[in-house]
Amino acid sequence: MPTHGTHPDHGFDVHPWELRWRGFDIDTIGRTEALFATSNGHIGLRGTFEEGEPVEVPGTYLNGFYELRDLPYAESGYGFPESSQTVVNVTDGKVIRLLVEDEPMDLRYGSTVEHERVLDFRSGTLRRETMWTSPTGRTVRIRSERLVSFTKRTVAAIRYEVEPIGEDMSLVAQSDLLANEPIGGPGGKSASDDPRLAAALDAPLVADLADCEDYSAVLVHHTRRSALTAAAAMDHEIEVSGNADTSIRAEGDLARLTVATTVEQGSKLVITKYLGYGWSARRSVPALRAQVDAAIAMAKETGWDALKAEQAEYLDAFWRDADIEIEGDSELQQAVRFSLFHILQAGARGQSRAIPAKGLTGPGYDGHTFWDTETFVMPMLTYTAPAAAGEELRWRHSTMDKAKARATELGESGAMFPWRSINGEECSGYWPAGTAGVHVSADIANATARYIRATGDEAFEIECGVELLVEIARFFSGLGHHDMNGDFRIDGITGPDEYTAVANNNLFTNLAAQQALREAVTSVSRHPAVARELGVTGAETARWSSCADDMTIPYDDALGVHQQCEAFTLLAPWDFEASTGRYPLLLNYPYYDLYRKQVVKQADLVFAMYLFGDRFTPEQKLANFDYYYPITVRDSSLSACCEAVAAAEVGYLDLAFDLMSESVFTDLHDLHNNVSSGLHIAALAGAWTDCVAGFGGMRDFGGAITFAPRLPRQLSYLSFRMTVRESRILVAVTADSATYRLVSGPTLELAHHGERFVLGDHPVIRPIEAPPSRQAPIAPPGCEPYRRAL
Amino acid sequence: MPTHGTHPDHGFDVHPWELRWRGFDIDTIGRTEALFATSNGHIGLRGTFEEGEPVEVPGTYLNGFYELRDLPYAESGYGFPESSQTVVNVTDGKVIRLLVEDEPMDLRYGSTVEHERVLDFRSGTLRRETMWTSPTGRTVRIRSERLVSFTKRTVAAIRYEVEPIGEDMSLVAQSDLLANEPIGGPGGKSASDDPRLAAALDAPLVADLADCEDYSAVLVHHTRRSALTAAAAMDHEIEVSGNADTSIRAEGDLARLTVATTVEQGSKLVITKYLGYGWSARRSVPALRAQVDAAIAMAKETGWDALKAEQAEYLDAFWRDADIEIEGDSELQQAVRFSLFHILQAGARGQSRAIPAKGLTGPGYDGHTFWDTETFVMPMLTYTAPAAAGEELRWRHSTMDKAKARATELGESGAMFPWRSINGEECSGYWPAGTAGVHVSADIANATARYIRATGDEAFEIECGVELLVEIARFFSGLGHHDMNGDFRIDGITGPDEYTAVANNNLFTNLAAQQALREAVTSVSRHPAVARELGVTGAETARWSSCADDMTIPYDDALGVHQQCEAFTLLAPWDFEASTGRYPLLLNYPYYDLYRKQVVKQADLVFAMYLFGDRFTPEQKLANFDYYYPITVRDSSLSACCEAVAAAEVGYLDLAFDLMSESVFTDLHDLHNNVSSGLHIAALAGAWTDCVAGFGGMRDFGGAITFAPRLPRQLSYLSFRMTVRESRILVAVTADSATYRLVSGPTLELAHHGERFVLGDHPVIRPIEAPPSRQAPIAPPGCEPYRRAL
Repeated sequence: MPTHGTHPDHGFDVHPWELRWRGFDIDTIGRTEALFATSNGHIGLRGTFEEGEPVEVPGTYLNGFYELRDLPYAESGYGFPESSQTVVNVTDGKVIRLLVEDEPMDLRYGSTVEHERVLDFRSGTLRRETMWTSPTGRTVRIRSERLVSFTKRTVAAIRYEVEPIGEDMSLVAQSDLLANEPIGGPGGKSASDDPRLAAALDAPLVADLADCEDYSAVLVHHTRRSALTAAAAMDHEIEVSGNADTSIRAEGDLARLTVATTVEQGSKLVITKYLGYGWSARRSVPALRAQVDAAIAMAKETGWDALKAEQAEYLDAFWRDADIEIEGDSELQQAVRFSLFHILQAGARGQSRAIPAKGLTGPGYDGHTFWDTETFVMPMLTYTAPAAAGEELRWRHSTMDKAKARATELGESGAMFPWRSINGEECSGYWPAGTAGVHVSADIANATARYIRATGDEAFEIECGVELLVEIARFFSGLGHHDMNGDFRIDGITGPDEYTAVANNNLFTNLAAQQALREAVTSVSRHPAVARELGVTGAETARWSSCADDMTIPYDDALGVHQQCEAFTLLAPWDFEASTGRYPLLLNYPYYDLYRKQVVKQADLVFAMYLFGDRFTPEQKLANFDYYYPITVRDSSLSACCEAVAAAEVGYLDLAFDLMSESVFTDLHDLHNNVSSGLHIAALAGAWTDCVAGFGGMRDFGGAITFAPRLPRQLSYLSFRMTVRESRILVAVTADSATYRLVSGPTLELAHHGERFVLGDHPVIRPIEAPPSRQAPIAPPGCEPYRRAL
Repeated sequence: MPTHGTHPDHGFDVHPWELRWRGFDIDTIGRTEALFATSNGHIGLRGTFEEGEPVEVPGTYLNGFYELRDLPYAESGYGFPESSQTVVNVTDGKVIRLLVEDEPMDLRYGSTVEHERVLDFRSGTLRRETMWTSPTGRTVRIRSERLVSFTKRTVAAIRYEVEPIGEDMSLVAQSDLLANEPIGGPGGKSASDDPRLAAALDAPLVADLADCEDYSAVLVHHTRRSALTAAAAMDHEIEVSGNADTSIRAEGDLARLTVATTVEQGSKLVITKYLGYGWSARRSVPALRAQVDAAIAMAKETGWDALKAEQAEYLDAFWRDADIEIEGDSELQQAVRFSLFHILQAGARGQSRAIPAKGLTGPGYDGHTFWDTETFVMPMLTYTAPAAAGEELRWRHSTMDKAKARATELGESGAMFPWRSINGEECSGYWPAGTAGVHVSADIANATARYIRATGDEAFEIECGVELLVEIARFFSGLGHHDMNGDFRIDGITGPDEYTAVANNNLFTNLAAQQALREAVTSVSRHPAVARELGVTGAETARWSSCADDMTIPYDDALGVHQQCEAFTLLAPWDFEASTGRYPLLLNYPYYDLYRKQVVKQADLVFAMYLFGDRFTPEQKLANFDYYYPITVRDSSLSACCEAVAAAEVGYLDLAFDLMSESVFTDLHDLHNNVSSGLHIAALAGAWTDCVAGFGGMRDFGGAITFAPRLPRQLSYLSFRMTVRESRILVAVTADSATYRLVSGPTLELAHHGERFVLGDHPVIRPIEAPPSRQAPIAPPGCEPYRRAL
């Protein structure tokens, strides 16, 4: 998003491997809840304080666990979804309330002497240290550390220490499992301005079971309408020098272990809290209870130290395969690792669940998954954490029945995947920017093909890949048609740019569908037996090929540029002067006006030039970029990273650097002023995209991995790592050369700026020429890329 | 609407000047409530029984009186209307309940010996005669007659007679004013399936005043949200041979006069009930009460007989100017007069209020007015009841502030009129088929220009006409733009065909806008002083002319047909075989599928060929009709009459006759199975359109009235009347000749099949040649035009 004027200090200490914040401004607490969220892709815990308050959005999420709510329409229509899934804040196990001599520890009262929070990208933990003096003058030091385990996906754990300073102190700790938390924060605001959403989420959980024993307790609840059941369990280890009175209770929405003790000066109360979570649409309450009991037993048996050790080991392996090193901009280095870390958290252990647009960091977008995942997040996972990528695609495949049913409902062939969903059913309540965004299905197909090419995962291809590709090819070959001129057209749909909707022959969609059709033909030829089971005939694949070959590619001969959709370049110009200060435009202009003018919300054709770059000449790319960049307003966080790649390719390196910064700092600098509701996972993935595909120039057209690296003057060094089938490579770029190393695995054929080479045991070093110096086009007024105060 | 299979007897006696029905099938009672509705355009009474029940929708309406309700959105957007107006059933004064020896008279019980209802097009009354035997064997004859006065617009009256048969009988009559009637009928169904609508309309009226004295009573209520106040008053004359005990009371939602008497055999109880209605957004309760008291005083002073005489006199004058005579099809004759009568009822005395799509005959479409009024209803009123036409346009002009505010809200210039409304504010909850239907503004401009040309009403033009034309020209000149080729384009809007929406350069809209722009230039040149007050400059009118001159007219050179919108002929064909039996398509197919294929809901380009026929050659008209008729499914009642005109012009007279029948019998034969919620006023106006513009071939391009009459073989004679400025003419058509007569007024230049002549004192007789014999195109399967069992 374009931003305006100067930017304040965002309060983070620059550190290559940590996000560290010393602030405790209550007004910005919602941001830190998202930025400091910990997750393994299955369980997500927002970065709230253990003491429960102050809090903006408490947030404990289980991937795939949702409630239903009605979608109302002023005028309904056939095929409009009647209900939407929405992510539910499940039983909160993060809470450990503390009373210091009868006073509740709360940062809003007393005085905070020291306060620091650290999200550590290598340990995979959130640490915190607070020195606080109560209103009556007692001072305590609190240290906590929490993790959501990457190695044990149903487990989270918290280490909580309290140390009295200067005197002996009476302390009471209350460790909770708390269901149906009030969603409102300190201001008492409700779950949503939308009364329907608030109604669905106001106490969404119905208690099924509450039990406790010793230091452990369990709560099981189900949702009213979606009838999903979730179980949460906790157990504790307590270390204290003196005596401690403990009691436990569990009833309805609350389980609580109370520890009352007097801690001597110089001594500590240490509580280790183990949490186990599970949910199911089918399993019984006793079965789920058993599952979380087992998780807790496993966690305790492992113990805190070993859980931490496993976590660090898991992350060591991740960074070995995924790290990006940057020199010349240490804040960017930190931000890039922050991004990679959060994408790992979003996708690591989803295990056949979606990767939501906000990960598990907040309730934004109702917890839905969009095309973002396959198009922005999956490339990084495919080349750095392929197991996670495969799991995501297995989730898509698991929703095949729903996608086929949706296609049938709408009169289409094959499988039509939802624009937004948690469980695979369409949740879009405005079809021109939802159902009409059919490219999501092509995006899934192309992510599938990319994953298969990059990993050689034949089991996946046989079990899921062929079917995904076949049913999506069926969808597109039925969706479009050959006109009387023999051109294959896809009419009346919406591409990535949501300011141009229900258009004919959106170039992005046509190219994405073209590739999806060709990938299906290829996959069928690799696995004829699987294809036969799916009823694929030679005539059918021949038709897919002809649809792909005859695909309409709208081009304006007079202007010498491609058209984002047919007739796009004939539409009225947008009055950018008049719209200055009225961004995002969708809040200030009607769709009907946006749709019929040349104003682009987010990279669309320019994005296609990256994803389907072999379909454009270099001259076309330059002309297209120069035409579309000045009419693109980046009202979507998905735009800057794509434009950065294209800018880098055509040689506008300064501009590419600024655009990359805008993407990477979307959340750390809260450029959209909505981080509180969750991180923008796809924009974070832009950090990877811009390093690897932007300044690294990596492309993967049909399996041939090629590079065309070029650094912006702001950076002196960039290296990144990729895994391609069995080969791990490292690419290191400086201003005038690139070094390619094979870290492990078999030799690999690559290319550097168009020159092919085989990478074996010896590093390959190649020179980099400076790009021709060109004046970059100018953004619309007020839409200049974000530039940090450096 | 296309219909399927054979049709039952609809139960109406064929009569040239009456609609007479002897049936009393309770299941079809809702139909008769609409068909037998009486109205003067200000007050509307559905044709319910005086006894109150059985009833499907009780229905008493005051034009312009509405309640507000929220419009909800699953995903909202800028400029989406937040609330809608919806017509309210006001205080019901039709009710006169009858007890026959303690048994309530109710057609559902006992036995009905005779039953007949007559809507008389010349007396302007609804008569009824029922001979009914109670469950205990008492027989009474009931005669009633009611009218809503054309001459006294705030007055309605009912004459109600009860005659005991065969014995003296104790009778009690209860004459009510009843507010907040349950909307549900015998089955207890609610006001609407839509809970929001039901909530708004469940007891919408709040009591302000109830008073009574002698035989008279008054109730005043207001609506909760819209804060409109309505008053209803009644007074009575009672004629009975013996003594009658009477009592009156008024409280809250009910005022009741009770008359208890014993009537001797051979004698009658006769009650004459006078009703007065009024409403206001501004006037106080006492003021409104005074207004309806005055209405009642006037009505009583006039008396029943004189009210009837005035009514008949009013209608004599109407028929003198508007009657259409048909020979060869007596059912069609009846249906055409039924149509003209109801259009008069809808528009006669609206007096600066809208003419709703359902008139005042039912709650359908929430009581809203659409483009139907200016485009379908206004031509008939303009040439037959010009005063009513002028009033309608004055209503549009009175909403100018709202139309300008809406334009400003949506970033447009000038005035943007609502797609659907009661008070002038947009009520459309689905913008692609609402706000995007910008042609409504051009339709208003063109109706304005037509009215000015046909009447020479200079006072109207100065007070309203110039401003309407100027502000609408400003809207269209701002809405479209000149592209780099110098063509003026109007992109991203929706034409009449709602199965193709958010399209570029819809031909209908472009031609309508072109004409509206030119009419504005002409009007400005006639009234330069008015234009100066509106700030019109020479540069502005020059721009309007250039927009009109450069208007894009999409045409497919390869096929030799116009395109309904740009690229329309390149869209995928619709699979009509597969959709057989799945009409209306919008209930069975998603918009996204309908929009991107060649399937037409209702005449669009074909309609443009009638309204803007001077922009097409005869060859183009034929080619276009042959192309578009086979892909038009007539899922709208607005389609058949337009297609009939075009079919008649290109020489498909049999087809034109069938299409005309479909339009004319839309309501009498309940072809859409929804007459209960109100008549289709625009489809009824199609009766006039098809006689005058279809078989009469009347056109009015730029003020030159021309004819090209040709009868279908089913008719032996057709005559119609028109008023053009001061001249009244009669056109009589037989198979081989047409006779033009000047009934009164100055001579008039006309044309007959292209040959100009001046019509003076002597009739002009001209021969008619048979059209070339051509095979008409075939409708989509299952969409064949309605054909009566003759």
